[in-house]
Amino acid sequence: MTNPPAHLATLLVSCPDRKGLVASLAQTLYGHGANILDADQHTDLLAGMFFQRIRFDLSSLTTDRVALEAAIREVAGRFGMSWRLAWGHERKRVAILVSRYDHCLYDLLLRHRAGELDCDVAVVLSNHGELAPIAAQFGIPFQQHRAKDEATIQAHLDDARVDTIVLARYMQILSPAFVARWPARIINIHHSFLPAFMGADPYRRAYERGVKLVGATAHYVTDELDEGPIIEQAVVRCTHRDTIDDLVRKGRDLEKVVLAQAVRWHLQDRVLVYAGKTVVLE
Amino acid sequence: MTNPPAHLATLLVSCPDRKGLVASLAQTLYGHGANILDADQHTDLLAGMFFQRIRFDLSSLTTDRVALEAAIREVAGRFGMSWRLAWGHERKRVAILVSRYDHCLYDLLLRHRAGELDCDVAVVLSNHGELAPIAAQFGIPFQQHRAKDEATIQAHLDDARVDTIVLARYMQILSPAFVARWPARIINIHHSFLPAFMGADPYRRAYERGVKLVGATAHYVTDELDEGPIIEQAVVRCTHRDTIDDLVRKGRDLEKVVLAQAVRWHLQDRVLVYAGKTVVLE
Amino acid sequence: MTNPPAHLATLLVSCPDRKGLVASLAQTLYGHGANILDADQHTDLLAGMFFQRIRFDLSSLTTDRVALEAAIREVAGRFGMSWRLAWGHERKRVAILVSRYDHCLYDLLLRHRAGELDCDVAVVLSNHGELAPIAAQFGIPFQQHRAKDEATIQAHLDDARVDTIVLARYMQILSPAFVARWPARIINIHHSFLPAFMGADPYRRAYERGVKLVGATAHYVTDELDEGPIIEQAVVRCTHRDTIDDLVRKGRDLEKVVLAQAVRWHLQDRVLVYAGKTVVLE
Amino acid sequence: MTNPPAHLATLLVSCPDRKGLVASLAQTLYGHGANILDADQHTDLLAGMFFQRIRFDLSSLTTDRVALEAAIREVAGRFGMSWRLAWGHERKRVAILVSRYDHCLYDLLLRHRAGELDCDVAVVLSNHGELAPIAAQFGIPFQQHRAKDEATIQAHLDDARVDTIVLARYMQILSPAFVARWPARIINIHHSFLPAFMGADPYRRAYERGVKLVGATAHYVTDELDEGPIIEQAVVRCTHRDTIDDLVRKGRDLEKVVLAQAVRWHLQDRVLVYAGKTVVLE
Repeated sequence: MTNPPAHLATLLVSCPDRKGLVASLAQTLYGHGANILDADQHTDLLAGMFFQRIRFDLSSLTTDRVALEAAIREVAGRFGMSWRLAWGHERKRVAILVSRYDHCLYDLLLRHRAGELDCDVAVVLSNHGELAPIAAQFGIPFQQHRAKDEATIQAHLDDARVDTIVLARYMQILSPAFVARWPARIINIHHSFLPAFMGADPYRRAYERGVKLVGATAHYVTDELDEGPIIEQAVVRCTHRDTIDDLVRKGRDLEKVVLAQAVRWHLQDRVLVYAGKTVVLE
Repeated sequence: MTNPPAHLATLLVSCPDRKGLVASLAQTLYGHGANILDADQHTDLLAGMFFQRIRFDLSSLTTDRVALEAAIREVAGRFGMSWRLAWGHERKRVAILVSRYDHCLYDLLLRHRAGELDCDVAVVLSNHGELAPIAAQFGIPFQQHRAKDEATIQAHLDDARVDTIVLARYMQILSPAFVARWPARIINIHHSFLPAFMGADPYRRAYERGVKLVGATAHYVTDELDEGPIIEQAVVRCTHRDTIDDLVRKGRDLEKVVLAQAVRWHLQDRVLVYAGKTVVLE
Repeated sequence: MTNPPAHLATLLVSCPDRKGLVASLAQTLYGHGANILDADQHTDLLAGMFFQRIRFDLSSLTTDRVALEAAIREVAGRFGMSWRLAWGHERKRVAILVSRYDHCLYDLLLRHRAGELDCDVAVVLSNHGELAPIAAQFGIPFQQHRAKDEATIQAHLDDARVDTIVLARYMQILSPAFVARWPARIINIHHSFLPAFMGADPYRRAYERGVKLVGATAHYVTDELDEGPIIEQAVVRCTHRDTIDDLVRKGRDLEKVVLAQAVRWHLQDRVLVYAGKTVVLE
Repeated sequence: MTNPPAHLATLLVSCPDRKGLVASLAQTLYGHGANILDADQHTDLLAGMFFQRIRFDLSSLTTDRVALEAAIREVAGRFGMSWRLAWGHERKRVAILVSRYDHCLYDLLLRHRAGELDCDVAVVLSNHGELAPIAAQFGIPFQQHRAKDEATIQAHLDDARVDTIVLARYMQILSPAFVARWPARIINIHHSFLPAFMGADPYRRAYERGVKLVGATAHYVTDELDEGPIIEQAVVRCTHRDTIDDLVRKGRDLEKVVLAQAVRWHLQDRVLVYAGKTVVLE
């Protein structure tokens, strides 16, 4: 609920599984005076891959951040780790992209104001002007671009020093070239239980198929539409009485909750991607 | 929990929506001394279709069943209704078809014995001999057939005077000709959240896609595989920690509950089919 | 999603169960040219009580509203029915009472603007001034009162011609005298799965008890605190990792959805109260 | 699904939180050649308590089990840890206590046979003879005792060398003296969402209160009835249409799933108890 304390840091690693990984990392952190608060790990035995998230307290560090980072780099090199280190004093900067639906935008901005999302919302970008007043109401800069004008989008992202892009029911498809610049950093909400009803108009198709549950899926964007690694999903019950409008209404509640959960986990550096899937560490 | 009282009857109707439908049926039943206990109806405004289920008490009938049925037939003819009338003293006769998985068979037989399923389990049919001891243990006749030998299956169904077929993880595909003889009377359990993962090996595919929920779907069988009208669906949460075996284990619990629910609704004459979907009336 | 068409009406009845009830009501409506669109009924066999909701179309009425209402009154008298008739052209007028938490207020006002709640939000009342800007932003009158000053509250309700009161995390207890004037017309959201954690501070107590699910309950207010008839409930999973703040955050999402659902059902005249419980008709 | 490999071991520790805990344990295991497969930990900041579960592979141990256990004991002493070590080759021995309801017993025995529960079911004990045939059918010894005759129960448990007691709808209350001998080793299933409807007859009371969800709770037994640490809970939706019998039927499905989940977690040494609550580590 509160800001992430500046004296905390989070380390995320993934690598081929080997003996001594856990001990080496723990020993390295301990040796520098860092106190491990949380550690969650996962070994995918089939893939032979190891994943770990360690959150630790820097306040009694006996060396300094530079030395600690160098030591982690050394261990990582030895074990062939991919890794990233997030310092508590560096808040992530988020851009929210929208079109005309306002429910996810409102929801994210209200949660941000309530302290649920630990980031700076740097800018709201849209291919329409309609939602500008909502951004204004929360004091967030709003920038409009023409459809498909990704150069302008990128310029706005650069200007606002954005790390993470949230597509809050943004109705444009981003090009593979654009997506390639933001690997595992663009979060989309799709209004179905993927892989069911990929593509356009999922509520109408769910209605026509007569399903008894409708869903929503938050995923990282890749260059294959609706095929990116799934971060979170949820469903809600429906019946033959529900019209398409009812499914849209029920779905809105799901979309908001599922997208916010995925964004929160991403901001907390809990999500690792491999083999087209996510590992969400506690 | 108890047997359906012999003095109750259930009327299911569907027809193009017209004024006076509800009043005519209610008036007809009332005129013969039948007391309406439950009535649930649904109008699909898009399709212009009307559906109703009426459960009524025959114990103070002022005429008799033949006269009542004739009167209903007359109203039905006037409004162009499809209808069916289930008398409480005629229990449905069910065949359960299985292959090698025993969890759904066990579950159905235990529920039947506990009074949850109001029917006679007339026979268990299988393309394997393995599950014969389970049928024996519950005192149910067991008949084995060779794969694809639908003539033998049909003969066993005829011998046992079966109305309803339950595919309790039966691993054979029934031919269109066979299916055509049993419209909306064959219930299958598919081990995914349809339309996701239609066809073979859904748990492995769910694992590979990295979904965060796995599901199960009970549906009527039509001649398009896994495309029949959905009666019931449910999902359960999974994470990156779940192996395929874990998904199979979690899925078993879903399959049992979802199949049993669909069978129960079918036996209670709650399910109507139209436009490839179901209406499940209360 | 859209306004309730002015040519529709909803009849809600409850009475001791007797033969001929359904036929008499259906016949009466039919006889005046009203077309029944939906009808749902329930018989509580234990209590010997009958409940029905009928929604019908007035556009081809062969008499008029006055005559129809007189005819319904006549039938109701004959069967000892409690009844109420809601005309589609008369929108309900709602007051929202709040204290300092803004999430339910925001949620209701956003849903109202999105067309999800078919009513006029006549006024927002509060024992604090803090949330006045939110009401202003949606163009809803806001009135402040001192704690316990129920005479002022009642005056504002009268001025605004309010039918239904929604307590959207209103932190004051209303007196029995006040509550008695609004039977089954005050809806409260309690932040626990009632009857667990009645009274104050349910999230802290849920945390201390170590429950694995937290809940929210919407109910009609009676003069016994948190004992009123339950309209809707939901739960969400929690674990040992959740702090009280996490439970509060997860609970907010539940509170919003559960309260909105209860208000929607109430506005659609689906909810009947008897024996301290609700019947929510389809 | 398969037996726990004999070359695996699980270490569970809890202690006041201090720096260096994680590194010391990891270093100790690594130093003896044990390979950490999974490690999950939790720090309760409020209580200042640390909890960890480490599962490790013994197959390339460079010392032996005795030396490893001595080393762990040394670290534990230094940090004031409570700890327990479960060797993969020592399967837990479980007694199931029942009265007359058979659904949980059947469910546990079927899951055990399907490989879902990694233990030996050593004995079924009952204060009635009714369920003896079920135990026989699965080849499990069955022993009957008179109500309240805890000396006989204890003798049977001793004879069967039991570690864990599962109360599968056992309708007798165990004495404080008995319970004290089995701390965090007796698992009970209560047929409500605790702390709602503690004590007798929860389905009837849920029906009378008019709740919209019914629940089940698995917990460790302590000497205060239904107040023990909760391991798992779940709920299912109900409506005004559900009779008490319907709630019982819906509840049975919950009871089975919730009890089996709690037993599975217990058998996997995932559950730690403190402050009347559980920590369930991954």
